[in-house]
Amino acid sequence: MCMDVVVNAAMSADGKLSTCRREQIKISGSDDFARVDRIRTRVDGVLVGIGTVLADDPHLVLDDLDGRRQRQEAGRPTTPARVVVDSRGRTPPDGRICDEQAETYVIVSDAAPDETRTALRNGGATVLVAGDDRVDLGLAVEQLEAAGLDSLLIEGGGEIIFSAFEAGVVDRLSVFVGSLIIGGRDAPTLADGEGFVKAFPQLSLETVDRVDDGVLLQYTVE
Amino acid sequence: MCMDVVVNAAMSADGKLSTCRREQIKISGSDDFARVDRIRTRVDGVLVGIGTVLADDPHLVLDDLDGRRQRQEAGRPTTPARVVVDSRGRTPPDGRICDEQAETYVIVSDAAPDETRTALRNGGATVLVAGDDRVDLGLAVEQLEAAGLDSLLIEGGGEIIFSAFEAGVVDRLSVFVGSLIIGGRDAPTLADGEGFVKAFPQLSLETVDRVDDGVLLQYTVE
Repeated sequence: MCMDVVVNAAMSADGKLSTCRREQIKISGSDDFARVDRIRTRVDGVLVGIGTVLADDPHLVLDDLDGRRQRQEAGRPTTPARVVVDSRGRTPPDGRICDEQAETYVIVSDAAPDETRTALRNGGATVLVAGDDRVDLGLAVEQLEAAGLDSLLIEGGGEIIFSAFEAGVVDRLSVFVGSLIIGGRDAPTLADGEGFVKAFPQLSLETVDRVDDGVLLQYTVE
Repeated sequence: MCMDVVVNAAMSADGKLSTCRREQIKISGSDDFARVDRIRTRVDGVLVGIGTVLADDPHLVLDDLDGRRQRQEAGRPTTPARVVVDSRGRTPPDGRICDEQAETYVIVSDAAPDETRTALRNGGATVLVAGDDRVDLGLAVEQLEAAGLDSLLIEGGGEIIFSAFEAGVVDRLSVFVGSLIIGGRDAPTLADGEGFVKAFPQLSLETVDRVDDGVLLQYTVE
């Protein structure tokens, strides 16, 4: 795989991305936000799962002005492309992620109805098909490469992060561990999905840094 | 609260204590095991939830010979007391946790049937009652104090760790973060239970140390 794929997330000390009600709460701080902006400055695409789109209506553009300028000076779009992994094509065409501020790719499976694909295309998104019933992330990454993307930041949620590890497409993982407990057996975690029962993805801990009131752990995937 | 309560656990980089099948897998290594032995050497009691007892049949005694000798020289039992939080009295009286190698406290609620209490007492355990339908951990800690225990190590699982934070009895948290992904929306995490939706327990990150192939995070509870 030529595509460089980094997963980045902020979790509580007990591994949660948000509460059991899927409400986002403040886990990291301004230093970590600036760090995520630096990653967004670098990458060609920012990828999220449909769960995150429906829960948070994220914009996913690079807000940092210096970062936008750097990208512009390098002849790149001011903000990376947005990518939604969305097996059934449920992305709202009028959501913030489909606005004109950046390119948007919606990756659907064969199971996505034609009318939703058409609505997304009419809303300005590029629709890619990868997989039968569910999006096959390996195929999706190949299609994004074919579309000219060389690097990808996966921002979550836990379902898509698990799928990315399952598909073996992740090169690096950055986790900010915030100094709080969220708890909840049903709260989203860094990696949800079915879970591994053998052949657990092994990581190599490259750097450990205190950031804000927590700690940033950076791993490469072995 | 006079009782000194520390929670210690080893989790994967995505916050899991075991797999979705509740199978324990190797998360930490020999340096972390030695560290846990040092905590067991220090404390008066080691506490787990009934879920852990039924899943793992743990022994919870201090195996380290130096630690046992240290405790003996200080006039203490060679191994700390075992404490099971067990609302309905389901602890098997013939389980390893009830053997004669250490004192065993089983903390039940009023809902625990008389016959199971009797069976546990006949098996050698001390049965304490704290709470109506479920064990009230605040009351449980008071009863353990009255029984002469001044310090407690809570080893899990995620349900009891959440309850301990909910009851406000935790002074410190030590988490070893192993360099692997376990995944699974149903896998046990460091803090399960219902989850907090406000008033999230805030931690203060005291130390960050590389241990084995992972990192040990030590917090005090604010």
